[in-house]
Amino acid sequence: MTTPRLASVLEFLTLADQLKHVLRRGRTLDADGIARWENSAEHCWHVALAAVLLRDELAFPVDLGRVLAMIAAHDLVEIEAGDTFAYDAAGAATQAEREQRAADRIFGTLPPDLGAQMHALWAEFEAGVTPESRFAMGCDRLQGFFQGVISGGKAWIEAGVTTAQSARRMDPAAAVDPAFATLIAALRERALAEGLLRP
Amino acid sequence: MTTPRLASVLEFLTLADQLKHVLRRGRTLDADGIARWENSAEHCWHVALAAVLLRDELAFPVDLGRVLAMIAAHDLVEIEAGDTFAYDAAGAATQAEREQRAADRIFGTLPPDLGAQMHALWAEFEAGVTPESRFAMGCDRLQGFFQGVISGGKAWIEAGVTTAQSARRMDPAAAVDPAFATLIAALRERALAEGLLRP
Repeated sequence: MTTPRLASVLEFLTLADQLKHVLRRGRTLDADGIARWENSAEHCWHVALAAVLLRDELAFPVDLGRVLAMIAAHDLVEIEAGDTFAYDAAGAATQAEREQRAADRIFGTLPPDLGAQMHALWAEFEAGVTPESRFAMGCDRLQGFFQGVISGGKAWIEAGVTTAQSARRMDPAAAVDPAFATLIAALRERALAEGLLRP
Repeated sequence: MTTPRLASVLEFLTLADQLKHVLRRGRTLDADGIARWENSAEHCWHVALAAVLLRDELAFPVDLGRVLAMIAAHDLVEIEAGDTFAYDAAGAATQAEREQRAADRIFGTLPPDLGAQMHALWAEFEAGVTPESRFAMGCDRLQGFFQGVISGGKAWIEAGVTTAQSARRMDPAAAVDPAFATLIAALRERALAEGLLRP
């Protein structure tokens, strides 16, 4: 005999399982070098790990619990809205509206207080104003860039992404903290050296 | 020009990418009902989400930042030691030693202070003494049980796992908090009703 509240949490976790089937535009290579597209669930874990490793490098303090809760929640909207490739201009035009609708729908399945809490985490991440959300955004974009670099940048090459386009995507992450600026510069240098981005 | 410290973090994140290729013994079904084995990276994200959703149900306070950092770190040893099926007695006999060696090796690639921090998170999770590690362990086992239940319990059926064996695995999680006891009882009822566990 479960309570309606706990039953609703189980239902939500069942819905969340679908994030494991939302594919991103970065790949991951196994030990034999066989590549497959990364999914948003494993991406979220990798972003969380980056945050744990980088939290002490920041020049400003953050509440790590809120950072990691935000990272766990921020991509759930993709279950309904899909992942939007960072360099898909047409997708970007409708992304905010699609994700807003998805957030209302998905978090609306939870008991009101819990749904509001999850919705607030997602909205804080999207707004990117608080130190916690800026750090989380920095880790999210850093991981995306990193993942492309370590897996051969297939999606960038196919889309002909330029260094300037990549910089527009990564500059807000580089501005989070000098440590991010350093990491992103190192990754950009590698991406250029390996021909993953157009000069 | 990156610093040796930040370069080492990027190296560690590259190594960590391999956790996406460690397969567990629970499956995940896509929207069309096509099943595949779950990997340990996406499992870790799902465990973190469970912790975020359940933190306010606990009868005791926890530092959510430490809980979620522990969850992000706790399975990294599987990159070297592999995932050990909960009902593999032969594997269990060598698991602690294999994972200890893997922890020393993997966390040893980081700068000493950062490696010690990650090692401490892993060791705290394994010891299971602090409120944070008990909550994290509860979420980890709950997600494993849950994932088996929602995906048809293939590995349990093939191994002929009994209700008593499952209870020995899940009782420590049920003891974490009444909310866990309730959730696990509900999942067990469903597993029995669907014939996923032997009576």
